[in-house]
Amino acid sequence: MASMLLSRQLSCCLQQNSRLLVFGHRYISQAAAKIDVDFDYDGPLMKTEVPGPRSRELMKQLNGIQNAQAVHFFCNYEESRGNYLVDVDGNRMLDLYSQISSIPIGYSHPSLIKLLQQPQNLSTFVNRPALGILPPENFAERLKESLLSVAPKGLSQVITMSCGSCSNENAFKAIFMWYRSKERGHNNVTKEELESCMINQPPGCPDYAMLSFMGGFHGRTMGCLATTHSKAIHKLDIPSLDWPIAPFPRLKYPLEDFVKENQQEEARCLEEVEDLIVKYRKKKKIVAGIIIEPIQSEGGDNHASDDFFRKLRDIARKHGCAFLVDEVQTGGGCTGKFWAHEHWGLDDPADVVTFSKKMMTGGFFHKEEFRPNAPYRIFNTWLGDPSKNLMLAEVIKVIKREDLLNNAAHAGKALLTGLLDLQARYPHLISRVRGRGTFCSFDTPNDATRNKLITIARNKGKAICV
Amino acid sequence: MASMLLSRQLSCCLQQNSRLLVFGHRYISQAAAKIDVDFDYDGPLMKTEVPGPRSRELMKQLNGIQNAQAVHFFCNYEESRGNYLVDVDGNRMLDLYSQISSIPIGYSHPSLIKLLQQPQNLSTFVNRPALGILPPENFAERLKESLLSVAPKGLSQVITMSCGSCSNENAFKAIFMWYRSKERGHNNVTKEELESCMINQPPGCPDYAMLSFMGGFHGRTMGCLATTHSKAIHKLDIPSLDWPIAPFPRLKYPLEDFVKENQQEEARCLEEVEDLIVKYRKKKKIVAGIIIEPIQSEGGDNHASDDFFRKLRDIARKHGCAFLVDEVQTGGGCTGKFWAHEHWGLDDPADVVTFSKKMMTGGFFHKEEFRPNAPYRIFNTWLGDPSKNLMLAEVIKVIKREDLLNNAAHAGKALLTGLLDLQARYPHLISRVRGRGTFCSFDTPNDATRNKLITIARNKGKAICV
Repeated sequence: MASMLLSRQLSCCLQQNSRLLVFGHRYISQAAAKIDVDFDYDGPLMKTEVPGPRSRELMKQLNGIQNAQAVHFFCNYEESRGNYLVDVDGNRMLDLYSQISSIPIGYSHPSLIKLLQQPQNLSTFVNRPALGILPPENFAERLKESLLSVAPKGLSQVITMSCGSCSNENAFKAIFMWYRSKERGHNNVTKEELESCMINQPPGCPDYAMLSFMGGFHGRTMGCLATTHSKAIHKLDIPSLDWPIAPFPRLKYPLEDFVKENQQEEARCLEEVEDLIVKYRKKKKIVAGIIIEPIQSEGGDNHASDDFFRKLRDIARKHGCAFLVDEVQTGGGCTGKFWAHEHWGLDDPADVVTFSKKMMTGGFFHKEEFRPNAPYRIFNTWLGDPSKNLMLAEVIKVIKREDLLNNAAHAGKALLTGLLDLQARYPHLISRVRGRGTFCSFDTPNDATRNKLITIARNKGKAICV
Repeated sequence: MASMLLSRQLSCCLQQNSRLLVFGHRYISQAAAKIDVDFDYDGPLMKTEVPGPRSRELMKQLNGIQNAQAVHFFCNYEESRGNYLVDVDGNRMLDLYSQISSIPIGYSHPSLIKLLQQPQNLSTFVNRPALGILPPENFAERLKESLLSVAPKGLSQVITMSCGSCSNENAFKAIFMWYRSKERGHNNVTKEELESCMINQPPGCPDYAMLSFMGGFHGRTMGCLATTHSKAIHKLDIPSLDWPIAPFPRLKYPLEDFVKENQQEEARCLEEVEDLIVKYRKKKKIVAGIIIEPIQSEGGDNHASDDFFRKLRDIARKHGCAFLVDEVQTGGGCTGKFWAHEHWGLDDPADVVTFSKKMMTGGFFHKEEFRPNAPYRIFNTWLGDPSKNLMLAEVIKVIKREDLLNNAAHAGKALLTGLLDLQARYPHLISRVRGRGTFCSFDTPNDATRNKLITIARNKGKAICV
């Protein structure tokens, strides 16, 4: 069990799902007592600096095959357990980053190991089908016990994909089809549409757009990348599309001291959204949908108020645009609810919600009206992977059984309290402390300070990769 | 062991990899004798029409969750073995389509089952890492024993991805970066480039294009979709990019009777490629790369001569464009060589080769000069899946141990001979018989005939899905 004090936590961006993110804090310890943690380590254990000599050797080797400069260190996953990541030099670190927020219930969870050992599950891992044409007998049943058991309110339909980018790309396509079908008002497609789409031209390929936000990240394939605006390195040299980009609120902290300023900031951004929809419509580029993250993650952990999102949802409805909530990074429980957008209390649900990462499979939920009107329109060879659905079903069982959503909420509160305390003591190092559940972060005055904090924390046994 | 005669084979598109695609043909039987087939069935066994009652019931159930109209039938993968696919109504069919060409060595292969049962492999399935930052200790080694052991000549670099679309999308990006870097001539990126790319505008997002071929299929995400031109249903209602599209040769069969006509047809297409590169360059849209499949698969099994591809490679070089060979569907051995483009005998290798499907993991090989010049440029959360690399390493061992490339070549010859025989006997039903390895096909006079042939074949125990 992790025994370090909260005051020793240092991180820029803590996106743990929850399981064993427990600190020396009384009510968290009580919550943790319910959890089966007999397989877990009792704390970090450092043997070398990180990356250590073996990691460095392996980096060199990998770098002969591909650019390996992003590698932080190499891992021994066999020895990693719960929230503890073990590297190839034998260092055991509390993992505060959980593989870019993609590990739902920690490493080597006994329930997942058991699942793999059951002979009846072998076939699911060995025989990967083309799910759209030849699904396994239990496909619908498995979707019900996994994804549909946690479906956001109002979204009865689900399609699985292999990764986050494919999820957003296909959600865009479903939105474009929905919009065109609305515009047509009937099901008759013209010969001109059928012919022009084959050569990438309108009217078959209409001039539709997705509106996105500056600072957002929605993936790296070309459609997604046109809505991603977090870092230049992702976009440089790649051709793109002229799609509208609205400002995302830049809130001032602490929130209670800047109520009026923040309201004005959010109102300004919402006004810009409406202006952009109108402006683009005038130049014959139709905004078919709006995509947004509940917390801009890759873009620097930017939050907005629940009220901002509710009003944005209203704007989408008013202008006939689909409202797509990208929960690839925020979904799966880390904010204390299964989906971060559940915090908003929307009257009218989102139209489409995309997921991946901690959900183990990519995909998207959607309202019935966004259902493709013909087979093969939203389609690819694999359409996800039943072995991931099988594991997800088990993960969801664990989350429910171990009350991990509440655990994330409680652990998050303790974490945030600790970070606020640190901010009060070290205001020259830490500012803008913010978070929801364990999805917590703070700003440092500059990159050098951030990097120094990360290095110190890592060498004290906290694996943080930014 | 499959004992049916070749004359009973009916199919429009046969893309089996090889393993047990053995017919009542003498030298094939000899080759097959070397193969460990003790787990295989001895023939098809039909109990109901297909889809049967249980499949129909499950289709209805799945249709409540997603559009399930593309489903052919539901499968019992636990009971499926080798080339025999068993459905939920107990029908056992010779699978001539292998999950849209994505199953490399048949169902429930004993070597893969064994792999899953080994305790030391459990962690690989349970702990999926973010490969770009925290790879497992054996990552480079596993790449060497799997993908790099079959790397196309001249391509020393490899990056893994989760699916075929992501592989092509990222290959495009690597090509665009390479082209821009060439154009810049140095590594200094301007402030204007960094700022403009954040809002999707040039010069940061340059107006580059990929040249593709009519009839080609390269995936369904927005970048890939701009190069896909096989069927309108894939493209209708989705905004696209104005990228050049060249004609793909439409060869006349039998080839030996139309040598001159086919040469002229190929020359016409190549001329059009050059014209398009020049024409687009004039309108300031630069063709950075050319993408092509060795056999246009989804587009209707369209072949061209080795000479055509060699000349196309020369054109790419002449105009400074990258030459991308999409082996997503053709790679993995079904043409009798591991990569279909190995048949061409290129002097200068392809620049980039993409793969997925039978390779179990997506990704692309590339020449060293296409290596991204900085970390995080070609990147995403998962970058593939080490559990797929593990299975691929085993699949490649099986392919080598059981000499499956030669088996595919021999079985393909037998299949093609049989199809030619059928064509001679039923010229009103079957025409344009063509193939390479087991990648064989023929045309029918119309869709109705095709569908009737498929239904008859399926109900006789041949699973063919088109």
